[in-house]
Amino acid sequence: KTFLQKIRILHDACSGWLVVLLIGMAAGTCAGIIDIATKWLITLKMGVCTNKFWLDQESCCWLHEDQNSKIDNDSCAEWRSWAEILGGHRGHGASDYAVNYTAYVIIAMMFSTLAAVLVKNFAPYACGSGIPEVKTILSGFIIRGYLGKWTLLIKSVTSPLAVGSNLSLGKEGPLVHIASCCGNVFAHLFPKYGQNEAKKREVLSAAAAAGVSVAFGVPIGGVLFSLEEVSYYFPMKTLWRSFFCALTAAFVLRSVNPYGTAHFAMFYVTYNRPWLLFELVPFALLGVMGGLYGAGFVRANLFWCRFRKNSKLGKFPILEVMVITLITVLLSYPNPFTRMDASTVINELVQECGPTSHTNLCDYNVTRHYHGLNTTFVPASPSGGLGDGLKTALWQLALAFLFKCIITVFTFGMKIPTGLFIPSLAVGALMGRIVGIGVEQLVYTFPDNPMWKTDCQFSNGQSCITPGLYAMVGAAAALGGVTRMTVSLVVVMYELTGGLQYIVPLMLATMFSKWVGDALSGEGIYDGHIRLNGYPYLEQKREFTHTTLAADVMRPRPGEPPLKVIVQEGMTIYDLEELVKSNTLNGFPVLISNDSQRLMGFVCRKDLIVALENAHNRPEVTEDSPTYFTLHCPASVSELGNSNPVRLFNIVDLSPIAVSDHAPMETVVEIFAKLGNRQVLVTHNGKLLGIITKKDVLRHIAELEGEDPEKIMFD
Amino acid sequence: KTFLQKIRILHDACSGWLVVLLIGMAAGTCAGIIDIATKWLITLKMGVCTNKFWLDQESCCWLHEDQNSKIDNDSCAEWRSWAEILGGHRGHGASDYAVNYTAYVIIAMMFSTLAAVLVKNFAPYACGSGIPEVKTILSGFIIRGYLGKWTLLIKSVTSPLAVGSNLSLGKEGPLVHIASCCGNVFAHLFPKYGQNEAKKREVLSAAAAAGVSVAFGVPIGGVLFSLEEVSYYFPMKTLWRSFFCALTAAFVLRSVNPYGTAHFAMFYVTYNRPWLLFELVPFALLGVMGGLYGAGFVRANLFWCRFRKNSKLGKFPILEVMVITLITVLLSYPNPFTRMDASTVINELVQECGPTSHTNLCDYNVTRHYHGLNTTFVPASPSGGLGDGLKTALWQLALAFLFKCIITVFTFGMKIPTGLFIPSLAVGALMGRIVGIGVEQLVYTFPDNPMWKTDCQFSNGQSCITPGLYAMVGAAAALGGVTRMTVSLVVVMYELTGGLQYIVPLMLATMFSKWVGDALSGEGIYDGHIRLNGYPYLEQKREFTHTTLAADVMRPRPGEPPLKVIVQEGMTIYDLEELVKSNTLNGFPVLISNDSQRLMGFVCRKDLIVALENAHNRPEVTEDSPTYFTLHCPASVSELGNSNPVRLFNIVDLSPIAVSDHAPMETVVEIFAKLGNRQVLVTHNGKLLGIITKKDVLRHIAELEGEDPEKIMFD
Repeated sequence: KTFLQKIRILHDACSGWLVVLLIGMAAGTCAGIIDIATKWLITLKMGVCTNKFWLDQESCCWLHEDQNSKIDNDSCAEWRSWAEILGGHRGHGASDYAVNYTAYVIIAMMFSTLAAVLVKNFAPYACGSGIPEVKTILSGFIIRGYLGKWTLLIKSVTSPLAVGSNLSLGKEGPLVHIASCCGNVFAHLFPKYGQNEAKKREVLSAAAAAGVSVAFGVPIGGVLFSLEEVSYYFPMKTLWRSFFCALTAAFVLRSVNPYGTAHFAMFYVTYNRPWLLFELVPFALLGVMGGLYGAGFVRANLFWCRFRKNSKLGKFPILEVMVITLITVLLSYPNPFTRMDASTVINELVQECGPTSHTNLCDYNVTRHYHGLNTTFVPASPSGGLGDGLKTALWQLALAFLFKCIITVFTFGMKIPTGLFIPSLAVGALMGRIVGIGVEQLVYTFPDNPMWKTDCQFSNGQSCITPGLYAMVGAAAALGGVTRMTVSLVVVMYELTGGLQYIVPLMLATMFSKWVGDALSGEGIYDGHIRLNGYPYLEQKREFTHTTLAADVMRPRPGEPPLKVIVQEGMTIYDLEELVKSNTLNGFPVLISNDSQRLMGFVCRKDLIVALENAHNRPEVTEDSPTYFTLHCPASVSELGNSNPVRLFNIVDLSPIAVSDHAPMETVVEIFAKLGNRQVLVTHNGKLLGIITKKDVLRHIAELEGEDPEKIMFD
Repeated sequence: KTFLQKIRILHDACSGWLVVLLIGMAAGTCAGIIDIATKWLITLKMGVCTNKFWLDQESCCWLHEDQNSKIDNDSCAEWRSWAEILGGHRGHGASDYAVNYTAYVIIAMMFSTLAAVLVKNFAPYACGSGIPEVKTILSGFIIRGYLGKWTLLIKSVTSPLAVGSNLSLGKEGPLVHIASCCGNVFAHLFPKYGQNEAKKREVLSAAAAAGVSVAFGVPIGGVLFSLEEVSYYFPMKTLWRSFFCALTAAFVLRSVNPYGTAHFAMFYVTYNRPWLLFELVPFALLGVMGGLYGAGFVRANLFWCRFRKNSKLGKFPILEVMVITLITVLLSYPNPFTRMDASTVINELVQECGPTSHTNLCDYNVTRHYHGLNTTFVPASPSGGLGDGLKTALWQLALAFLFKCIITVFTFGMKIPTGLFIPSLAVGALMGRIVGIGVEQLVYTFPDNPMWKTDCQFSNGQSCITPGLYAMVGAAAALGGVTRMTVSLVVVMYELTGGLQYIVPLMLATMFSKWVGDALSGEGIYDGHIRLNGYPYLEQKREFTHTTLAADVMRPRPGEPPLKVIVQEGMTIYDLEELVKSNTLNGFPVLISNDSQRLMGFVCRKDLIVALENAHNRPEVTEDSPTYFTLHCPASVSELGNSNPVRLFNIVDLSPIAVSDHAPMETVVEIFAKLGNRQVLVTHNGKLLGIITKKDVLRHIAELEGEDPEKIMFD
């Protein structure tokens, strides 16, 4: 017997590991395919690989050029721009430019329109980033079909299209949704996880971790993101499985994606120079700027989404996508920092300038040193006055920053998959690089300032400031401002840079960004969208500090009709059917008698309906049959007139969670948040007084915070 | 008013950050001082820096030698061994060896005896690693003085002494205890944290994170350790503060400790070679070996500690320490891998062999290549057949492994500060290095085996196997087997190696180690010691899978005398005093009347005692005065004979947590684990039936698992 038990325990444990292994593999595969498709679609706007049309620009020109500069290269024999294919010449003539521009716009429009049509017709849930909804689902709310197969398929297909159309959005948020869909699909293969909502949520937490893991190539950051931002209940035993899932996904992604480098991470950077103490001031400034941007973005975007919902705009989702795409691509083609996709731009911005960098961003008037016989020596991190290329680049950076700031507000929330990580990182990186170059020039112009004179020698044309690090810090600050992530954000950025010493700048910026953001808009973008959509999500992180009591929140409120209850003996089938029809409550308390009002148990609406249907199917039961919710039920008919009694003891939950009417709401909120139940009964000295549901709690919190509870909730 | 509220919120938030900042700084400072003292004491056993006696060997010889090999160097002019000081010569003559040996033994004996005397006389709580107790405290149990100033001081002083005496123990576990003491001390400076046990526990969680952070220089690993292993309630809002605390501590440590390197971490390694797929087999084997070691260690150590407790041995703690020290130092001096302190040995074992390595561990018969005109070229990672030095080293490694395996069992649990991280890592690293050299020789001897032929070319005398990586993996496996840590262990090792690609070997080994360990001994060393000491700790990670009901666990059990209760009206002061005296219960339920048995509230023993004392001080109250726990209390004396009524409504908790007698124990366990209360009342239809305390739950779980509940608990 004990051996059998051991086998069962082993099988139990194995199925848990197997399900996360499968989810990790599926998420990694999805991410790999999406990655390849996205790269191809992005470069398809520019041209085609003539021999092998299925290759993107990078793979097509693989052997033909140095990979230092990705933005400026547009030349290898196999790769032809649209102008060349249509008979034009290689080069930058006006007509060629016009042809390329037109092709770019038309192709982008096709992509985004196709994405919008697919989403509207096949899987409306595939729109948006999905993170607010996954959060809500993990908190215990059920949205049927949100994590279904169709959503998985359509979101996987439309995400590359949306990114390929050069809209200001990313595929990283959607990847979390896609991974969660994988989690849901595979959970249903295992009865232990498919049939138990709580267990399924554990699996979904692991899947969300795998999503972030593959989105950025950061397994530890993914687990912490799931822990900090997405998950609601995160028992420690699932931490290990989430980690396994995230790592599996990252490895599968690396083996699926043939373009991957030896490093997992999306933007792997190693800086050669340490940061200096005085730089903490500009880093903190970047944090403040990130917080300002984040708060502004959250407010503007929520305003726009509310407007979309309440106006006629919401009725034309495809048209909206087309208009925004047209504006985006028309304005973004002329500027190289918006023409290329955002993740390439970010990668460019966070790099250090090396001796072989030839991009505009590294065009300094470098002092070259003569080293031996006629050999010029370029310093490892060249710097100096602004070159012409860098001056141009600064203008382009500033314009790109402004443009992305504005267009992202209108893009996030459209009815196509719209991730927010990459646009936020891009805005932050643009901002950070500008600030970084500014600080560098400040140090270059005033080399003798006591703040940096001792630490920073501008000798040999070598700078002590790394503008790429500022871009990294700025990116963290902007993303922090928008999402209010903290630890997971720092860990993600740490995994991206791979140097523990840069944690301090990142952490400083993230802290300032969160403080400023929280001061100016109380919630992150995900919580904002949860509230906007009226999902019943009870925020766990905020402390409930009010001193109200359960009696103040429970229904019935004074003056309302009394609570709908069941009495344990004597109600007829008809009475119960009327009770079910008369309202939409989730369940009914069972009392011993109407006189004593003593609470005996709780019956779920769903169970009651099933039981009533079963009773109807028995011929001896009529509408007048009395029902008994007690353990013992009189068997003989004679005592009770002409009807057979119906015993319903089995559907009663004999231990509903109940609190006294004097219980502080703090305790009630804690019970909801930690035990995950849907209602709490309120008693006084054993007598039932009322009921509190999760929605009552949310309504109460909204009231206490001076908001109109009915306006924001349950649309 | 709203402005004032905002100020208050700001102050509230700031005090939270301030307290963790102070704790981080204090923990970092303590760790820095302990580090310096430990290094000095360790090398004091070998000799003295003649000019500057306060310097340890490394600092004394700072400029005089290359730092490649730490084990073999014993030569710089300023540093003199005891034999030299006492008139001998530099060298390895027999008499000098004897003098050095004797000095080593005598000094080690002095250190450990002093430590044991200090602990016994000034702070008995300073013994052991402290982690089991910190875990128990964080779960809600109060051990007075355990985190007090004296413990902090004595543990900080005796930890370096214990490590300096070369016993098989570390200062890393004690650092967690020391950081928690700092946390407790600083929490008392802020009323918000000092007066609220729940808030204080949040601060202590952050302090524990700081402890691990400074112990190994791994801030992220520290936070995850606190989250996974130490903390019981870890609300997400404290995650960020814990991270801040851990990072502050790490930075302060780096600036305090002048010997620190640019990297934070204790053993920073970067390997040049990737691992190969077939190596997963030996890595998994290392995991199994680690699990076997861990399970064996846990069982042997718990057996020995139980023996110590129950026999006369426990009465002579100082003598025990002296005997174990004598055995340890006598046996460890002849072997260089036990003579040096364990962390230096680990550091040596995890390193790669480079072209300039001259230690015995890297003594391969390397093929040197001639490169141009007479220049010999040594490969970057030289390997080949075993040299004589390596053969000797292998014997020494094996002997050191066996010795450490055995002596650690007797060392952990003695009445001095004994950490377990370093000894476990050392055992694992010794084991891993042996396995690694074995695999390397296997590949060298059979270069054509198809398993590795394609991946691994033994060209140019260059190996594809890194025995140092095996040492790292083995260390993780052994520590995992002993403590059953998972995610935090992998993250700690990841932070130590700094390469995401080595996560897979580490994770594989940790998984196997945990599975094997769990199969052979159900609990980790910390949980074992918690059970051994009978602390009321309710394990959260294990699921409660039994189907018992609250009614089966509650007291009174059938046949026992009825529950001690208070009736809300009419009990006299005398009755209440007798009630308090007659038992040691934590509190008493309050009933409406003895007839109805309906529950009205709960009174804590402590509050009742204070209230009774206050009542005694009022002249009009006699022993016969009736008490009223109701809201309204009759004021007039005439109605009630000759005594004034006493109103005790204020001490009643009107909303005690109560469950129905049909509630499954699963729910009750969840309520205890998540809401952190000390008792749950059991009712049936509003009538009080009994009470369940946390100890009842623990006793019940022990019974269900076939253990004798009375034997193991509450000593």
